[in-house]
Amino acid sequence: MDTKFSNNSANNRVNLQNHAIKQTYAILGTGALGGFYGACLQRAGLEAHFLLKSDYEYVSQQGLRIESVAGDFTLPHVRAYADIQQMPACDVVVVALKTTQNHLLPQMLPSVLKEDGVVLVLQNGLGVEAQVAEIVGAERVIGGLCFLCSNKVQPGHIRHLAYGQINLAAYASGYQSVGITERMRQIANDFEQAGISMQLSEDLLLVRWQKLVWNIPYNGLSVVLDAKTDELMENRDTRALVEQLMREVLVGAAACDRIISDSFVSKMLDYTVKMKPYQTSMKIDYDSKRPMEVETMFGNPLRAAYQQGVKLPQIEMLYQQLKFLDSRNCSRGRANNS
Amino acid sequence: MDTKFSNNSANNRVNLQNHAIKQTYAILGTGALGGFYGACLQRAGLEAHFLLKSDYEYVSQQGLRIESVAGDFTLPHVRAYADIQQMPACDVVVVALKTTQNHLLPQMLPSVLKEDGVVLVLQNGLGVEAQVAEIVGAERVIGGLCFLCSNKVQPGHIRHLAYGQINLAAYASGYQSVGITERMRQIANDFEQAGISMQLSEDLLLVRWQKLVWNIPYNGLSVVLDAKTDELMENRDTRALVEQLMREVLVGAAACDRIISDSFVSKMLDYTVKMKPYQTSMKIDYDSKRPMEVETMFGNPLRAAYQQGVKLPQIEMLYQQLKFLDSRNCSRGRANNS
Repeated sequence: MDTKFSNNSANNRVNLQNHAIKQTYAILGTGALGGFYGACLQRAGLEAHFLLKSDYEYVSQQGLRIESVAGDFTLPHVRAYADIQQMPACDVVVVALKTTQNHLLPQMLPSVLKEDGVVLVLQNGLGVEAQVAEIVGAERVIGGLCFLCSNKVQPGHIRHLAYGQINLAAYASGYQSVGITERMRQIANDFEQAGISMQLSEDLLLVRWQKLVWNIPYNGLSVVLDAKTDELMENRDTRALVEQLMREVLVGAAACDRIISDSFVSKMLDYTVKMKPYQTSMKIDYDSKRPMEVETMFGNPLRAAYQQGVKLPQIEMLYQQLKFLDSRNCSRGRANNS
Repeated sequence: MDTKFSNNSANNRVNLQNHAIKQTYAILGTGALGGFYGACLQRAGLEAHFLLKSDYEYVSQQGLRIESVAGDFTLPHVRAYADIQQMPACDVVVVALKTTQNHLLPQMLPSVLKEDGVVLVLQNGLGVEAQVAEIVGAERVIGGLCFLCSNKVQPGHIRHLAYGQINLAAYASGYQSVGITERMRQIANDFEQAGISMQLSEDLLLVRWQKLVWNIPYNGLSVVLDAKTDELMENRDTRALVEQLMREVLVGAAACDRIISDSFVSKMLDYTVKMKPYQTSMKIDYDSKRPMEVETMFGNPLRAAYQQGVKLPQIEMLYQQLKFLDSRNCSRGRANNS
């Protein structure tokens, strides 16, 4: 189902070079993820525009500094914006916000998207593309699943620790599988020029569920049990629980007509055992007293399965535990800020 | 199924007074629970022998002090023992240890139990009576479910905050229902003389499952989410989760041929909403870095249902989370003590 981009990219790259029209990029959310990919694109000669909030002053003056396993670099000047209305309309609008900010998308997207532009959703969880499609139309949405380990260590200073690959797949109404589109190839070509490994997939819903196989157990349990991946894998009980949760994700995927094999579960377990102890993104958000991405990562998959008449009791329980912790954490966060 | 002792206790009391043989009591575990009930029995004129560990020196010299909602009292002299082999054989051996100490029972019980004596198990969870029956014989075991809110605030100093009722039921092989026995009436009579409200039940397994309806959700979630009962009931998600867990306990009970009605769940929920914010016993153990009673309160009910082919996925997940936390907590406890 997945297609390695490198298998058939040579021809496409030639075609694109013939066209020689460079796409412009708007990066909505210049954090650990958006800041990293946007900086790589700009370094490769592409025009990137960065939307910032709290770091705007700093980055507009000092630019971006990337400390990366693939080599450090600095961009002293970047096109930084605090107000999305000031940004030019771009060919590719990269949504790299936390999904907890997605209620802002209806106001944000229309002005920054060219008439023939596309929105590239680089977010976790399920269902965001459908939400974006309601704003810009289904044919203008592409999903991207990032396998990236990076942190923002200071304003404008991003530390890229490992990985970085993006798995692209086009959205179509109701998450039908649409195969590999020309636009996907154009975007993949830009990112590959920027040094990012790309994979093209025909079925967005399948790859989203596949990513949940990892994200649901590790993000959820890391917060509820205050544990890194290595601790969860070393204890016999949580090791078994992780596997049960993964198998419930497979049940959810099957309810949505997407079959993930048992061997995928074994692969994810083996992969995690071999990883360095990992702090999940949800745990980092929780520890920083930021809202967690509970709805897109847990609520939407649960509802998608439930709409097909399928209950996922252990994922539901994890969702309820996270909702409780999120609610308490955010009210304590507000109390500390006031 | 339950029989209020007060309904038919008058006759039995007369009979016992005619017999005029007072039962002697051995209290194994002089903590918040054993210390409280044992002190009440001694104050009422019964002979009580107390087994202690860390508090032995203090209590053998200073006795016990009970600060109680029902009236404070002090016992300057109690029969205190550090070594169970020094205790006389008694008519009633009250097991008031934490169930995490139950591996010691095979060594402890034989010498302290009179030939025609009985063991009264005042512990939480499921399956302990069967374990005790293997040591002393099924016909010599009575279960007692305590509805007591008390803490040990210092060595020999117990604070009784609320409630105190004990629900007695006799054990028989395989947890068959055996009705109300004469020995139950004798013990209930002693405790009632000591000011403790008593209830007699015909079916031990039923009342054990009934108590789990409360214990499983609140003890488990209070530890995993670091929350008191009021917080769990105020949040919409944990309120729903508590109810789901209660209904899974009903499924487990039904697997063991014990029917608990839906209205019992509503009763427990209403009762908890009206309670003062409550710190569960499992949370107190966890915070004190003591082992939690995970196996008797979660593991044994899960295994009992599983033996009948019934899975309880949300209780199982709570069990696995608690086992992880218990393991980490105890290893940290040991590290702090060394």
